[in-house]
Amino acid sequence: MASDQIDVEFVVPQTHRLRFTTDVFGADRDVLAAVLESSDGQAVRVQFWVDQHLADATPDLLDKINRFIDSNADRIKRVGRVQFVPGGEDVKNDVHVIERMLKVFNAGDLDRRSYVIAIGGGAVLDAVGFATAIAHRGLRLVRLPTTTLAQGDSGVGVKNGTNLFQKKNWMGAFAVPWAVINDAELLTTLSNRDFISGFSEAVKVSLLKDPAQFEKICNDAVKIRERNMEVALPVIKESAKMHLDHITQGGDPYEALEARPLDYGHWSAHKMEVMSGFALRHGEAVAIGVAIDTVYSSLVHGLDPSVPEKVLKCLTDLGFTLTDGSLTDMETLFCGLEEFRQHLGGRLTLTMLRNIGDAIDVHQVQRDQMVEAIEYVMRYANVQSHLS
Amino acid sequence: MASDQIDVEFVVPQTHRLRFTTDVFGADRDVLAAVLESSDGQAVRVQFWVDQHLADATPDLLDKINRFIDSNADRIKRVGRVQFVPGGEDVKNDVHVIERMLKVFNAGDLDRRSYVIAIGGGAVLDAVGFATAIAHRGLRLVRLPTTTLAQGDSGVGVKNGTNLFQKKNWMGAFAVPWAVINDAELLTTLSNRDFISGFSEAVKVSLLKDPAQFEKICNDAVKIRERNMEVALPVIKESAKMHLDHITQGGDPYEALEARPLDYGHWSAHKMEVMSGFALRHGEAVAIGVAIDTVYSSLVHGLDPSVPEKVLKCLTDLGFTLTDGSLTDMETLFCGLEEFRQHLGGRLTLTMLRNIGDAIDVHQVQRDQMVEAIEYVMRYANVQSHLS
Repeated sequence: MASDQIDVEFVVPQTHRLRFTTDVFGADRDVLAAVLESSDGQAVRVQFWVDQHLADATPDLLDKINRFIDSNADRIKRVGRVQFVPGGEDVKNDVHVIERMLKVFNAGDLDRRSYVIAIGGGAVLDAVGFATAIAHRGLRLVRLPTTTLAQGDSGVGVKNGTNLFQKKNWMGAFAVPWAVINDAELLTTLSNRDFISGFSEAVKVSLLKDPAQFEKICNDAVKIRERNMEVALPVIKESAKMHLDHITQGGDPYEALEARPLDYGHWSAHKMEVMSGFALRHGEAVAIGVAIDTVYSSLVHGLDPSVPEKVLKCLTDLGFTLTDGSLTDMETLFCGLEEFRQHLGGRLTLTMLRNIGDAIDVHQVQRDQMVEAIEYVMRYANVQSHLS
Repeated sequence: MASDQIDVEFVVPQTHRLRFTTDVFGADRDVLAAVLESSDGQAVRVQFWVDQHLADATPDLLDKINRFIDSNADRIKRVGRVQFVPGGEDVKNDVHVIERMLKVFNAGDLDRRSYVIAIGGGAVLDAVGFATAIAHRGLRLVRLPTTTLAQGDSGVGVKNGTNLFQKKNWMGAFAVPWAVINDAELLTTLSNRDFISGFSEAVKVSLLKDPAQFEKICNDAVKIRERNMEVALPVIKESAKMHLDHITQGGDPYEALEARPLDYGHWSAHKMEVMSGFALRHGEAVAIGVAIDTVYSSLVHGLDPSVPEKVLKCLTDLGFTLTDGSLTDMETLFCGLEEFRQHLGGRLTLTMLRNIGDAIDVHQVQRDQMVEAIEYVMRYANVQSHLS
């Protein structure tokens, strides 16, 4: 009964727009204006959502946004007031923030040709992105990431979501942002800790994809820590491009398959974040997680031992501390493996390294060697702390 | 600064599975079991959501579901109890129903390899579909539509959603169902009114896509009204296939473009539903809306006058009454044009017919001719009611 069974493979066409600017509301404001395309020749309707952290650190931000609107008054119509939301996980831990966003969208009569511009760290982008994804089945989202982490990694991606039932990203949606604008000026108010924090993901993606880029980050690590922007910006840019390339050319943008190579080092990182009560930043946890899985890869999967040495040195040079109190409770830490499996479902699938630029999927973890890897990283961090 | 602007066109690969059965929990249960693929060799986790309307009309449904599970115990693990939700717009008018679904998914530890089987009319499928779309960024949804309307039209589609702010489908998500199973047995408990109601969408899609199929429905209309399943089932099947084909091969599954040809006749239909306080069924409103826009197409867009004659007769033969009290308040009815535009945003874009199988997009409506079309349809309906 062949005609009673129809399987159709098809594709959903998407466009991703990524821009790099140095002063998005000033000298580069035409870049932002240009992505706000009108579909009917009328002025486009635009609503702004801003991370309170950034607003506090940038007293003239509202003025700049207003000047941007005024200078494009014929093309852009601001809907309602600029809205502010808490930064960090706070915005994702209260589902009523999503409700508020939907109410504001509705009050402003936003439709699927309207733009929502989200300016903030990864958590704010996640939350605003989720609200835009489910309003009218999708408003047009323009992301302006304000952290090195969001600019080089999550802000470029297609995941949106919020926490529910005390579980990270339990509720969410895949949705391609209309555009992402990585602006250098928006990074200037970051604390040193937050500035550094994003570069562990840059190390991660270079390990997976590009040996030369990894070497470059290793060589420039100290300058990055010192916030030499001539060195740091190209690294963020390359990281963003590698993430974009993975999503758009990797064949599995919405993670239908088992493997999620970009989650290298993340099984333990997610768990450490929770165990530390989020005292550990995501990027800091990823640094430790990448260190652990790189050592493990050399113990179990034939990765040359020189690689973990370089990785641990590189991350330390960047300013990361490669240990955390949570590592001493390995029983609990290893629960992170099951939680990692469960979030995606199906078999446990971790990415490990056979070589730089040569990742493999593994479905089992050898507990003794993983313990050995963790202890190695902890010892290394302790030695470094005595040396410094 | 070309390297500072990256535009990437890419595609998201998707699979759509459509099945036709005559007894999905009995003789054809292998069809259902077969779509519940395991990704890790373990039994798959499955949760059921059932339309209370269907449950009331089918006292042995729970037994049948249980027997289905028992006979596949090695492959299928039922998670929690079978859940019941109100049928019709009730399920979409209370957002707490969505919250309840999410809580049940979470309590059952469903993940992205788990299956949710939704059995119900279009509204229940919409609501369960939305909840599955946002849990873990997407559980696997198997739809078993239980109305002619859902089997031939919405159940095959990629829209999911619920009403918010008293606006239809304000909150929602595009998501391709894992599988759709159109089962004939599930239609047997429908009232005559609901049975007929789905065929206006079959007329609509045949007018847009397939002149031969339109002729076939015209010829079989009386037999369909009499619930001759040998005639009715192939019409539902062909309607479902044309909808599937439009979605998967039409190039715009997630409605990024202006045109939405499947919404032919829907601008007035949506408004009539609301104006009638939903006393008018969706399919009934679509019948009137299709009649109006077909007459209008002949008045303004050169459609041969024999076509509206055939369409009005066909819909009447199917059992539709082509008038409604809301048509007498044309001022309010015409607000439906602006609301239709607003839901998608951008320019007003309506589909009209130049010929059967030859649809065009139009961006303006000539009010006088539309009034004439509406009055013509009303007169026709009144004459028919005197004749019958």
